[in-house]
Amino acid sequence: MRLATLDDGTPDGRLVVVSADGSSCASAPVDTLQQAVEGWDVIEPALRAIREYPERLPAESLRAPLPRAWQWLDGSVYPSHARLMEQVLGLDPIISDSPLMYQGVSSKFYGPNEDVVMRDEELGIDFEGEFGIVTDFVPMGTSAADAAAHIKLVVQINDWSLRALAGPEMKTGFGWIQAKPPCSMAPFAITPDALGAAWKDARPHLKLRVCWNGEQFGNADGGPMEFGFDELIAHAARTRDLVAGTVIGSGTVSNENFREAGSSCIAERRGIEVVDNGEASTAFMRFGDRVRMEAHAADGSAPFGAIDQKVVRP
Amino acid sequence: MRLATLDDGTPDGRLVVVSADGSSCASAPVDTLQQAVEGWDVIEPALRAIREYPERLPAESLRAPLPRAWQWLDGSVYPSHARLMEQVLGLDPIISDSPLMYQGVSSKFYGPNEDVVMRDEELGIDFEGEFGIVTDFVPMGTSAADAAAHIKLVVQINDWSLRALAGPEMKTGFGWIQAKPPCSMAPFAITPDALGAAWKDARPHLKLRVCWNGEQFGNADGGPMEFGFDELIAHAARTRDLVAGTVIGSGTVSNENFREAGSSCIAERRGIEVVDNGEASTAFMRFGDRVRMEAHAADGSAPFGAIDQKVVRP
Repeated sequence: MRLATLDDGTPDGRLVVVSADGSSCASAPVDTLQQAVEGWDVIEPALRAIREYPERLPAESLRAPLPRAWQWLDGSVYPSHARLMEQVLGLDPIISDSPLMYQGVSSKFYGPNEDVVMRDEELGIDFEGEFGIVTDFVPMGTSAADAAAHIKLVVQINDWSLRALAGPEMKTGFGWIQAKPPCSMAPFAITPDALGAAWKDARPHLKLRVCWNGEQFGNADGGPMEFGFDELIAHAARTRDLVAGTVIGSGTVSNENFREAGSSCIAERRGIEVVDNGEASTAFMRFGDRVRMEAHAADGSAPFGAIDQKVVRP
Repeated sequence: MRLATLDDGTPDGRLVVVSADGSSCASAPVDTLQQAVEGWDVIEPALRAIREYPERLPAESLRAPLPRAWQWLDGSVYPSHARLMEQVLGLDPIISDSPLMYQGVSSKFYGPNEDVVMRDEELGIDFEGEFGIVTDFVPMGTSAADAAAHIKLVVQINDWSLRALAGPEMKTGFGWIQAKPPCSMAPFAITPDALGAAWKDARPHLKLRVCWNGEQFGNADGGPMEFGFDELIAHAARTRDLVAGTVIGSGTVSNENFREAGSSCIAERRGIEVVDNGEASTAFMRFGDRVRMEAHAADGSAPFGAIDQKVVRP
């Protein structure tokens, strides 16, 4: 089952169920995705019972499936990315047997085709292609084994980053405020079962094709997460309840063979250049640049649709 | 003007305006504090026009003024606290000409008398008494000079902390998830003008009396913030719009003469003990312990009311 949110002028938009071919949709029995995840046990069967899709899906008015959330927690669970970044930045390896995770701004998720306003090109504008999940209410202390059942929807995310600010903020130990403006979401939120074989061990086995100004930049596989989304949920819920509609991200998708697979963020490409050539040659984004992200399953389908956005000045 | 939120069974409660003597209240022209800050320019005059308080204020059903928020950003701007903690933890001094700030869980703020559920005493259960402000919408790039006008309400907060988890999380650079469960708020949110001389340079010049199991633990002055709330807003808004209803905290209130003034968290007291005696002797909180926090102005008034809570097991 795939869900989308249409722009109807309200803060949270209007929830629709999308037909298998993505051309049409049907109104949901609740107004918003937030309401759906708050009452998932009751709402899900009603959503799944829909068989007729009377409306054309208006691609031009698709918002983020969850245009704002009460909580956004982003992991960093691809070891190839983490090790490269430590090496390039000259950081000591982060010693932790837990997933890395920070809390980010959740009051806005950009829609898939919305222009992204950045203040200054000198801040090191970068994209981070990743996957995410949306939970229902998760009680404090939920184990990883029990957490999988709380993964209600899978989403595709661009976690916008400002690299000139990221290092200094990280060194404070307080995490990122200025380096992490709001993220973007691809148009369709999909239930794990609808991903079929591509969803395994609470990990999305899809390739995330990232194109920057029309050229392919990366096509890494989402599968090799060191910690699955079940473990990320358990980590987040160790000392707090997770509100229904919590969004948890994987961090930048990255593969061990990143020289062949390409990267899901510019920082990683620059890191490879530093290792290979002694200095980075790829510049960060400029105003007017576009980035497109679309994850594909083995059969070539793109279950989340595409994020395709332009970076603009204020 | 003082505002409070009554428990009416809804997630955001019911907003009321509180009489000067705190005994009675009047319904607001909007349902919730979130709605009030979203439309503050229109709602504030209507709130201020209220002259009659027909309802008894039911102390037993007071919630946090903002029971949940779209964004909670907590600073750490009392230099005496930061320097002591660095010294005790053996950290390098954090080099930054910006305020320190992390993003925390905002999907729940405990009400002033709600029991606080913690999983395990061994996690180092601690309180952090502090002040906070609530903003209306703040555009990205707002300067500190312009930010003061966005401070709509002042609040008093307990930022619950789990010290056994805080150090390891801080060392990752990603900030805190497990070490920072939801905060609590005192019952009354107050407009800056109503604090009179106690509100100066976007700083609250009130003493925050903290009592642990009935004994005074600290009575530090909120005034000596290295950065005012105007500067904290500008820091947070550098690369993002701040959603209306953003809550920004000061971090643990601390004074240079902490041996006389006392502390607003146990970690600081333990730090003083380490410096003075070579080891910490004050243990963290136990299940069944209570902490009471009430800020007082020079005239002895307590504009925010008191937080008075018990820590309980799940």
